[in-house]
Amino acid sequence: MILIGERINGMFTDIRDAILSKDPGPIKMHAQKQYEAGARYLDVNTGPTVDPKEQPEVMEWLVKVTQEDCPLPCCIDSTNPKAIEAGLAVHKGKAMINSTTADQFKMDLYIPLAAKYNAAIIGLTMNDKGVPKSAADRVALAMEIVVNCDMNGVPTDDLFLDPLMLPCNVAQEHGVEVLETLRQVKTLADPAPKTTMGLSNSSQGCANRHLINRTFLIMSMACGLDSAIADVYDTQMVEEVAAARVLMNQDIYCDSFVKTYLQR
Amino acid sequence: MILIGERINGMFTDIRDAILSKDPGPIKMHAQKQYEAGARYLDVNTGPTVDPKEQPEVMEWLVKVTQEDCPLPCCIDSTNPKAIEAGLAVHKGKAMINSTTADQFKMDLYIPLAAKYNAAIIGLTMNDKGVPKSAADRVALAMEIVVNCDMNGVPTDDLFLDPLMLPCNVAQEHGVEVLETLRQVKTLADPAPKTTMGLSNSSQGCANRHLINRTFLIMSMACGLDSAIADVYDTQMVEEVAAARVLMNQDIYCDSFVKTYLQR
Repeated sequence: MILIGERINGMFTDIRDAILSKDPGPIKMHAQKQYEAGARYLDVNTGPTVDPKEQPEVMEWLVKVTQEDCPLPCCIDSTNPKAIEAGLAVHKGKAMINSTTADQFKMDLYIPLAAKYNAAIIGLTMNDKGVPKSAADRVALAMEIVVNCDMNGVPTDDLFLDPLMLPCNVAQEHGVEVLETLRQVKTLADPAPKTTMGLSNSSQGCANRHLINRTFLIMSMACGLDSAIADVYDTQMVEEVAAARVLMNQDIYCDSFVKTYLQR
Repeated sequence: MILIGERINGMFTDIRDAILSKDPGPIKMHAQKQYEAGARYLDVNTGPTVDPKEQPEVMEWLVKVTQEDCPLPCCIDSTNPKAIEAGLAVHKGKAMINSTTADQFKMDLYIPLAAKYNAAIIGLTMNDKGVPKSAADRVALAMEIVVNCDMNGVPTDDLFLDPLMLPCNVAQEHGVEVLETLRQVKTLADPAPKTTMGLSNSSQGCANRHLINRTFLIMSMACGLDSAIADVYDTQMVEEVAAARVLMNQDIYCDSFVKTYLQR
């Protein structure tokens, strides 16, 4: 389970202010803190307030600052392909692109970038018609992305398919479909595609958000989830991830299994 | 998800003492407290200190006392078939028998009792050779129990198959097999057999027992677990069960979903 720390995002006011004032402090602080809390990738997103024209430059700065003192790779998160490439160009180690949909024009933009920079890429099982309701329709879109990765020389295990969980207060019928999608996409290629999830989506607008998030994360792990973009400051969630890895025989049991997970 | 409260068990000193002194107080207290905490069945077990000859009489008393003020049915838990029948004979509502293995002589003892008293029954996927390692071997034993229920006129959805989780510190390779067994046994009959689990087994002798228990419970729910014998005083666990039910669209979302789960 790769936890991708969600915190370096201009949506949060401290990061937005740090970007506007070119202050590396809060970014470096959240990089280090998320690393210590169990993150093994760091999502970096300029947020909605940066002018599209400035996004490439800001992303370049954000990736550099994030990686300056912290050994983790980044999940470069933008709807702007130029910002994505600007981040990839300065990134150290194996980056992750967040994200392409199953729309052909988007796959044609982002998948060649993954190939060029030897990056992993998140593929959302949606297109211009939106997020499908059934697992079968999600898996069909996943297959489009698998095929396009294959055609572009991106190894299928560098692809992280996201079945797109929707908030359970307004789209409750999606939960079981997402779990089923997680199981089924493993059969689409050999080596199997990996899977990921923007975890906080599941509880948007709900009461007890942390409870819903961690519960759905553990359910998803039982169905084959390989990674998640999440709030790694949620200690209970991280502890349960450590326990789930032991229970699935992915980490060897020892009495200090939580501490051991954080130090891996 | 039917939570079966584990607390009325002579293994606990307060219950053992209550049995020895014929004091209904602690038993009634735990019946009511477990009911309020989310239990919908109550496991009742005389414990290891009661002489086998006295077990039928003690079980009869234990069931009567448990049900005197509490509306819940009991899961009558004994290795002594005479104690099981004594409990069934005085039980109000639909009892559950805990348990038969896949050994023919045990199935011949317990399954006809389930038929006679219209009780549900727990079937452990083990026999005199022990607990098999693979899901396939567990499912094969499950099928033996399904067939014997069918032959005795016990409806397959009155059967609760327990794939027998073993402690993850000594038998780590069993976790994934148990999860796979939970998925597969649903295909053995129509209506599908139900599933259950003695949850505390998963963490016997481990550090962080509550963490391991609740994590494995949620993983198991994602794979089709219908019930568990568990410590319902573990509030975090019960809250996660409520969240998991919402996420699987088994209960309708409302902001007070935890409270609603407890009141169902």
